[in-house]
Amino acid sequence: MRPLKLTLQYDGTNYVGWQRQANGVSVQQRVEEALQEVEGVPVTVTGAGRTDAGVHALGQVASFRLEHPIDVASLYRALNARLPEDIRVTGVEEAPADFHARFSARAKTYRYRIFNGPQISPFERHYAWHVPHALDCAAMAAAARILEGRHDFAAFQAAGGDVRTTERTLFAVKLRKTAGAPGPFDAAAQAASASGELLVLDFCGDGFLRHMVRTVVGTLVEVGTGRRDVASVRELLTSGDRRLAGPTAPARGLFLVSVEY
Amino acid sequence: MRPLKLTLQYDGTNYVGWQRQANGVSVQQRVEEALQEVEGVPVTVTGAGRTDAGVHALGQVASFRLEHPIDVASLYRALNARLPEDIRVTGVEEAPADFHARFSARAKTYRYRIFNGPQISPFERHYAWHVPHALDCAAMAAAARILEGRHDFAAFQAAGGDVRTTERTLFAVKLRKTAGAPGPFDAAAQAASASGELLVLDFCGDGFLRHMVRTVVGTLVEVGTGRRDVASVRELLTSGDRRLAGPTAPARGLFLVSVEY
Repeated sequence: MRPLKLTLQYDGTNYVGWQRQANGVSVQQRVEEALQEVEGVPVTVTGAGRTDAGVHALGQVASFRLEHPIDVASLYRALNARLPEDIRVTGVEEAPADFHARFSARAKTYRYRIFNGPQISPFERHYAWHVPHALDCAAMAAAARILEGRHDFAAFQAAGGDVRTTERTLFAVKLRKTAGAPGPFDAAAQAASASGELLVLDFCGDGFLRHMVRTVVGTLVEVGTGRRDVASVRELLTSGDRRLAGPTAPARGLFLVSVEY
Repeated sequence: MRPLKLTLQYDGTNYVGWQRQANGVSVQQRVEEALQEVEGVPVTVTGAGRTDAGVHALGQVASFRLEHPIDVASLYRALNARLPEDIRVTGVEEAPADFHARFSARAKTYRYRIFNGPQISPFERHYAWHVPHALDCAAMAAAARILEGRHDFAAFQAAGGDVRTTERTLFAVKLRKTAGAPGPFDAAAQAASASGELLVLDFCGDGFLRHMVRTVVGTLVEVGTGRRDVASVRELLTSGDRRLAGPTAPARGLFLVSVEY
């Protein structure tokens, strides 16, 4: 059985998430169905990140094994021909024998997008969290810096996590404001676009707890609106108490950007 | 009755177009329903451009008249509260007594977006035409320059147009290639995005025939792929024969960007 590595993009709007679930169609199911048509028998794929319902991917990685001798270029075409338009394979590679999309991952980058303005652009409604209140980005960046490094992120973990340890390392949190070029129109279209700014937060870490990025974002937005002071974020880490953190930001603003091996 | 001017953005994916039609929900219908809730009686709105099913707007303009004394800021909020998320009002203004969204317009800008790469990004599937073949952009730009100026655009008009004259002035056609930043992710995400380039064509003119932009784009893509030479575009203008022009490019790549008065 040949070990293979897939890189995928998907719009998570119409899926129950990456992982197979009884209550609807998952991205994993669609990918496995496409692979089964090639292999002739069921194929199981493992994703690097278990993105939730509504969460998107720019660079999800999945591993699986095939008996079929199809070359990677043909597999790339065969899968894209069989997958729906909201899931695209962007790469297929032969992988090392022991490659495992999740366990071999050394780092992952997630992106969270916030549309900050009175009305969210119609083109951003599935791809950003609409926060109409003014946000103090300098305060948010200061709070984000507190989270960088190795910490116990228990306060930012949703119930239902089943991990051995809640310690994780956030290598970097980057926050930037773009001039508001939202959705499928670029800088030159700004004059005509819904007024607003796009706040983009990139989180690079060695691993993420369930809902961790979304809870961190919910907490940072509380800092941005002034509901919470920057220093409280340090206390939150120490407390390990989820009830003291901010709300879970909506899934639609979250993107799995890339996975490093 | 107070004359008013609305500026709107919408994602046209789920609509039969701007104009009311028997076969489904139009943007006009949604806007008129929202206005009726404010006014108490039916209100008719006139759009500057009759965008087709699947065509989007970054800056559609509509005119209407109200009896109700509501101020423009309250009307802005009331309409956005009543409209679905894929239609947003970006501006409400008092208008001159004789203002008419369509007849008062002096110029309109339409944008057409082409995703040029092997696989279209899932985030672009409703907002660009996927052209996988290599495109000669210099040839396309040369052909576009032939179309600038005042011409009889009969060859680029869909059947069913009911206009007095098919002469129009294209003030400018601008073609630019972006490094491929498609959809809701910006330049920094490129490394992780579906490989491809985005070709953006902006058309500014004093008026547009039915399907004119889409037929011009279909013709320019034929020039880009080498199926048609640049000079043939001049002959096409002279012929006035729609059968000699290229195919009508898909609606999903088209945006009404702005209307000048």
